Amino acid sequence: MKLNKKYSIKEIADLYDCQLAGNHAASFDSVSSLINSKPNSISFLSDSSHMKLLDNTNLSCVITTPELSTNISIPMIITDNPQFIFSKIIRENIDFKEYCFFDASKNTNVTKGDSCLISANVAIGDNVKIGNNVTIYPNTTIYNNCEIGDRVIIHAGSVIGSDGFGLIKQNNVWIKIPHIGNVVIGNDVEIGANTTIDRATIDSTVISDNVKIDNLVHIAHNVQIGKNTAIAACVGIAGSTIIGGNCTIGGGSGINGHIEICDNVHIHGMTMVTKSINKPGMYASGTTVEPVSSWRKNQARFKELDALARNIKNEKNKTGDV
Amino acid sequence: MKLNKKYSIKEIADLYDCQLAGNHAASFDSVSSLINSKPNSISFLSDSSHMKLLDNTNLSCVITTPELSTNISIPMIITDNPQFIFSKIIRENIDFKEYCFFDASKNTNVTKGDSCLISANVAIGDNVKIGNNVTIYPNTTIYNNCEIGDRVIIHAGSVIGSDGFGLIKQNNVWIKIPHIGNVVIGNDVEIGANTTIDRATIDSTVISDNVKIDNLVHIAHNVQIGKNTAIAACVGIAGSTIIGGNCTIGGGSGINGHIEICDNVHIHGMTMVTKSINKPGMYASGTTVEPVSSWRKNQARFKELDALARNIKNEKNKTGDV
Amino acid sequence: MKLNKKYSIKEIADLYDCQLAGNHAASFDSVSSLINSKPNSISFLSDSSHMKLLDNTNLSCVITTPELSTNISIPMIITDNPQFIFSKIIRENIDFKEYCFFDASKNTNVTKGDSCLISANVAIGDNVKIGNNVTIYPNTTIYNNCEIGDRVIIHAGSVIGSDGFGLIKQNNVWIKIPHIGNVVIGNDVEIGANTTIDRATIDSTVISDNVKIDNLVHIAHNVQIGKNTAIAACVGIAGSTIIGGNCTIGGGSGINGHIEICDNVHIHGMTMVTKSINKPGMYASGTTVEPVSSWRKNQARFKELDALARNIKNEKNKTGDV
Repeated sequence: MKLNKKYSIKEIADLYDCQLAGNHAASFDSVSSLINSKPNSISFLSDSSHMKLLDNTNLSCVITTPELSTNISIPMIITDNPQFIFSKIIRENIDFKEYCFFDASKNTNVTKGDSCLISANVAIGDNVKIGNNVTIYPNTTIYNNCEIGDRVIIHAGSVIGSDGFGLIKQNNVWIKIPHIGNVVIGNDVEIGANTTIDRATIDSTVISDNVKIDNLVHIAHNVQIGKNTAIAACVGIAGSTIIGGNCTIGGGSGINGHIEICDNVHIHGMTMVTKSINKPGMYASGTTVEPVSSWRKNQARFKELDALARNIKNEKNKTGDV
Repeated sequence: MKLNKKYSIKEIADLYDCQLAGNHAASFDSVSSLINSKPNSISFLSDSSHMKLLDNTNLSCVITTPELSTNISIPMIITDNPQFIFSKIIRENIDFKEYCFFDASKNTNVTKGDSCLISANVAIGDNVKIGNNVTIYPNTTIYNNCEIGDRVIIHAGSVIGSDGFGLIKQNNVWIKIPHIGNVVIGNDVEIGANTTIDRATIDSTVISDNVKIDNLVHIAHNVQIGKNTAIAACVGIAGSTIIGGNCTIGGGSGINGHIEICDNVHIHGMTMVTKSINKPGMYASGTTVEPVSSWRKNQARFKELDALARNIKNEKNKTGDV
Repeated sequence: MKLNKKYSIKEIADLYDCQLAGNHAASFDSVSSLINSKPNSISFLSDSSHMKLLDNTNLSCVITTPELSTNISIPMIITDNPQFIFSKIIRENIDFKEYCFFDASKNTNVTKGDSCLISANVAIGDNVKIGNNVTIYPNTTIYNNCEIGDRVIIHAGSVIGSDGFGLIKQNNVWIKIPHIGNVVIGNDVEIGANTTIDRATIDSTVISDNVKIDNLVHIAHNVQIGKNTAIAACVGIAGSTIIGGNCTIGGGSGINGHIEICDNVHIHGMTMVTKSINKPGMYASGTTVEPVSSWRKNQARFKELDALARNIKNEKNKTGDV
């Protein structure tokens, strides 16, 4: 995102009472993400696991913490809450009333391809790009700047491009992170009824070609879904997770944020996916239905499971068994 | 809720063939909840655990069961299905066609603060109060009598104030409980896309200041959420549950009805919360993803877990171990 | 569904390069499902468990696989992907632009009963039938050909009749199965906010009289729900499942596709129902909340549960115990 003017890092440090390291005159006129760094831009780094993204970065400068600053060589603004300062810069440069909101009755600069069928009750934001032969059912909302490929079908009530659930704590209170990214939907994608796909914080939430998504699915900000993956109803996928191609995700599953699932992974219904999966195959979790009478006893025992297992191990040690 | 006229309990008992206890001439001209009892009003008591709510009550009289009646000293209407008679009284006094329904194209008596951005496709009911600087995205519905604070953001497709899922059985058939309460949303609240918040049966469903709610969340009737609590996507919170302040609830979690969760509780994603939590900390449930081949075996063994544990205990008793 | 013309099976086999068995001149002028077979129609059979549906069938002919063909005596089109050819026939005969899509602002041939309250923002498709005393709240969408009984209440944002999530793989790519069925909703049904009910592939998704459905529930294509069953919020029911009468399904539960649940079954919240239930009673699954510190250990042990159990069994065998 282009800012209204060029800033020096000294200007920002003075304004928000931060420290500096490196050339105080280092300047930027845009913001970008670490992963998609742009020349003359600033970003923020608050997680050491992202440090390698600064190798060969295009950034002019970065906002970071005192701890991380010792390993960084580009010009820096140093603060305890880098994303908060980053958000401040964005907020200073956007009239959010104008940027985020859209009056569905008078959208501007929308590009529609040939042979689209768009219902009367659909709300489309500014600068939305819609491909050819797209069908959008009633009561769907598409926020500004989102892009939709050819032959896409979006069922009723779906929401494309709502703000991600990005929050930071400052003085123990949740502060909203501004979301200036968008959603990019490929060709031949179908999206079920009342599904929600959030816009990325800075870059794009990406739904690749031929992805099929059922009803009431939640796809969070910055998620990427690979080609020809099918996602059944009531699935939730948390932020920044990357899912490969040709996967199937069973209904009601929950997928953690910031993980990666490789191609050709098949996940059973109602699975809790807490960590990355890097081997194709079938995966599941949880326990399946049984009468309440036995379930009550078994599920109570679950809470003794570790003690039970340790007990057995001790027992075997005593008897000399392996 | 004010009724159309003043009733004596004898009048009601005669009409619906109920018994009486206490002063037959005891009268009421409104209905209220037990917890928020109003003078000159009637309520119902069908659960012994709520008995203490009758201490120092403002109620004129109460509808209760034969069993519970022996411990109550205020005038009573006695019946096997107290909530059914209570609902009958409400239905007699409301033209539900007028009360519940709203024609979104001609809402009346709506109060809007300054600088609100409300999309063209938003449907707002009668007597809705909206604070200052509120942003409401398209295809959102706000039922009548709901109240929304300052700087609230409601994303597309959300529904505020739909009837709670309140049903009672009468002659083995589900009967709808009329919902005459509302939803009250504090300041600086953000509500995600396609989230639903039901109106209270009689009083208010309360979303406190600075609460942040993600997409596709369900908040049932009479729930109260404390300040600065954040709720991730796909969470369901059942009726009358009270959640404290500064909590975080992970995506896909389900929270039982009629329980309390204290301040500073952090719940992992996909947790099944069946009972009250009265100690701050981190909580979780369930099992996490594994390959289907091992999962099948482990989850089958779960159903033998109690037998297994009892077995081990017996074994230890035999061998004299502790 | 009536086709545009009468076809011989030879015509289809020539067109799509399939084999034939039985009378090559066998003809059809409509498509139907196996379970609801119509005279002069064609259907497809790709699952041996459905073979018995061909006894006493009204079909003129069927599309099936080489393996299954040896047990079928009616005229056949033989191919490796029967549903793909079946879908091709449907697509050849429907202008999907005209059939599926509807302009909510000018619906045609809609039948509405007396005393209905239908909000200004509701989108209703062509040929929808609505009974008497029906209340439909704003931003609801009802796709074409659906039928709604008397005294039905549909809360805001719900979607009735969206396409089922029916996909087939052809050359390793997902192909959409056309959905030409509808949703039939009985009398006295209540449907919560932002709930989605998909249309059947060929016949009807059926919600029987007095069924009560909460918010954010997903009911897939071809599901049947029996009378007076109540379904709490955030439940997902997968395709073709049949649920009996007088059941209750707790919030957040997931019910597998193609199973049957008998009358009077009560399912706890967040239960994973993977198989048919043919005995009335109460059912549950999963484990309930505990502090993260103990949960981490117990859930890790879950993955050793089968090994643990086998270990104990071996131990007992050694010691001669039973």
